[in-house]
Amino acid sequence: MKVDGIPTRTIRSVRGGEAIEIIDQTLLPYRYEKRVLSDWRDCVEAIDSMRVRGAPLIGITGAWAVVLATREDPSNAALIRAAERIQGVRPTAVNLSWAVQRMLTALLPREPALRFEAAVKLAETMTQEDVMCSRAIGEAGAAVITKLYQELRRPLNILTHCNAGWLATVDYGTALAPVYFAFERGIPLHVWVDETRPRNQGLLTAWELGQQGVPHTIIADNAGGHLMQHGDVDAVIVGADRITRRGDVANKIGTYLKALAAKDNDVPFYVAAPSSTIDWKLTDGKREIEIENRSAAEVLSVRGLDHTGHDISVQIASPDESAANPAFDVTHNRFVTGIITERGVFAPTELAAGFQDVIAHAL
Amino acid sequence: MKVDGIPTRTIRSVRGGEAIEIIDQTLLPYRYEKRVLSDWRDCVEAIDSMRVRGAPLIGITGAWAVVLATREDPSNAALIRAAERIQGVRPTAVNLSWAVQRMLTALLPREPALRFEAAVKLAETMTQEDVMCSRAIGEAGAAVITKLYQELRRPLNILTHCNAGWLATVDYGTALAPVYFAFERGIPLHVWVDETRPRNQGLLTAWELGQQGVPHTIIADNAGGHLMQHGDVDAVIVGADRITRRGDVANKIGTYLKALAAKDNDVPFYVAAPSSTIDWKLTDGKREIEIENRSAAEVLSVRGLDHTGHDISVQIASPDESAANPAFDVTHNRFVTGIITERGVFAPTELAAGFQDVIAHAL
Repeated sequence: MKVDGIPTRTIRSVRGGEAIEIIDQTLLPYRYEKRVLSDWRDCVEAIDSMRVRGAPLIGITGAWAVVLATREDPSNAALIRAAERIQGVRPTAVNLSWAVQRMLTALLPREPALRFEAAVKLAETMTQEDVMCSRAIGEAGAAVITKLYQELRRPLNILTHCNAGWLATVDYGTALAPVYFAFERGIPLHVWVDETRPRNQGLLTAWELGQQGVPHTIIADNAGGHLMQHGDVDAVIVGADRITRRGDVANKIGTYLKALAAKDNDVPFYVAAPSSTIDWKLTDGKREIEIENRSAAEVLSVRGLDHTGHDISVQIASPDESAANPAFDVTHNRFVTGIITERGVFAPTELAAGFQDVIAHAL
Repeated sequence: MKVDGIPTRTIRSVRGGEAIEIIDQTLLPYRYEKRVLSDWRDCVEAIDSMRVRGAPLIGITGAWAVVLATREDPSNAALIRAAERIQGVRPTAVNLSWAVQRMLTALLPREPALRFEAAVKLAETMTQEDVMCSRAIGEAGAAVITKLYQELRRPLNILTHCNAGWLATVDYGTALAPVYFAFERGIPLHVWVDETRPRNQGLLTAWELGQQGVPHTIIADNAGGHLMQHGDVDAVIVGADRITRRGDVANKIGTYLKALAAKDNDVPFYVAAPSSTIDWKLTDGKREIEIENRSAAEVLSVRGLDHTGHDISVQIASPDESAANPAFDVTHNRFVTGIITERGVFAPTELAAGFQDVIAHAL
């Protein structure tokens, strides 16, 4: 997608795979800065501190981290040790372990001396696949939006939570790809952007929608239910960090509350994700998906611009206060209208049938 | 309740009703400062800017504003004009117009020269009634909590949204009064405090719970559903800004989302409010209750302490961004387990039967 009018991807390899360049998303929307990482430990730090974030993008960053580890020491022991560190840094999104495992499976049977070259090649392929996936999700989702527009014949209001946009993938996004593709085709639409406390990733969504010229309005996370009650939301589209075989969806904390409101108000609730987000081994998301608990500091502080225009962090409560910070929640499949994948849109219960070949390989 | 160990009320008359003293709640939890208001227009400003807030307290502040207006000019024309200004400043909470109308009804039949004295007397009575109301709500709600504790025999987790505590009333609170009364009686409990964006009134709740020594944890508004899914919430208790005859509840934006999650997870959902919050003329809350839209600036900025400990406001998004800010939402009575009033706890559909004498007088 575009930044200041220039087509840009969120991650790319530089110097033939000796390093990667990322956008430091912790600085957005206040500053747009790139960062070059040449050590796999820096990739781990970037994932951990959310310089890169979003399930698909942390998967691809994990793959490139394995490339950098392979360059440093291609031995089995070193590679396996690095891979463990990389895939353990964030537990909820399955894409990270999926990507790291895919790299390992391809590399370990090879001679150590040949591993770096193979790693670069596979990471490039996975990067390209992610772009193709987002594009296919965009096409499939745009068809859903177009159909809705043909029914309603008025500008559409779409609500999204967190950032499952271009910034969460290599390009186009997951939840926002359908929005971009539909908007590109002239469907009049407007996006309600949940700010998504505690980390306010909604501000990333607002920033990237603004960069592409898509009309949007920021709302507090509390507001979505009220808007749905009053007919001001035609569809909800969110991303996912992990989806089970039956279509339970782990996504950013608060997604479940929006799904409940969508159900109560007959608003279609879509989840857009590449199939690499589906964990075919799991069924009951609430019981089986590990939910990351992040630091209290994320709840007790907020970033923004002070009156001089500098971005700073303010403490919203006294240091005596404590906070809990579960980062994701799980939405049961009964609240999900459809899962928009690179193979099209599936009802949750039809997901497994649509990916039988993948499941056969995965289990 | 106590501030730094000293029993304190949120509002009191000074100099025989020639002025009132309030706590400037816009400065909390960062600074605890009182303010003396001697002009009714300052009361209007204080309600508008939320120096005083919470449905019961803005009602009482409205009553005292009428006192100050009566002192300035007790003529019919002046009084009616002032009353209109006062009751129009915030539209959603019924308590404000209820209190102002009660004052007018009592004052207008009197000689102008006698009105000030009568106004002071009635406002004092209403202030005292509010305290009695909160106390009765505390008793009735503490019985509910005690029963829950006798069933579960372990420390209880209670979730609350916004601030319906001591600070929202003259004393004790509505939603928090049951918590204080139960805690005082030795029921072990812990409160999950929704931060309640955009204005973060949850920080007021955390502050006042801390002042009374009640264990509590701040959470993002997004987190409650997840906690309920995992059995970490035994009851939700919230306040109300307006309740209809059938028990639909207008309360701070986001309340509806918590009510949905409570229903989905079989968590009892209680609303605590004095009967002055019930608007007997209304039935369908979603259609009939006017929802106040507040400024976008409240969503796009956040207050907190900078690194020098000064409380400042930061802009979380660029000034190009727009935001929508509905301040309340309506929860349908089917999500409400019970309404805790000064006359006890009622199922929503039994509310009218419990207040037939009041209804006869009100309609």
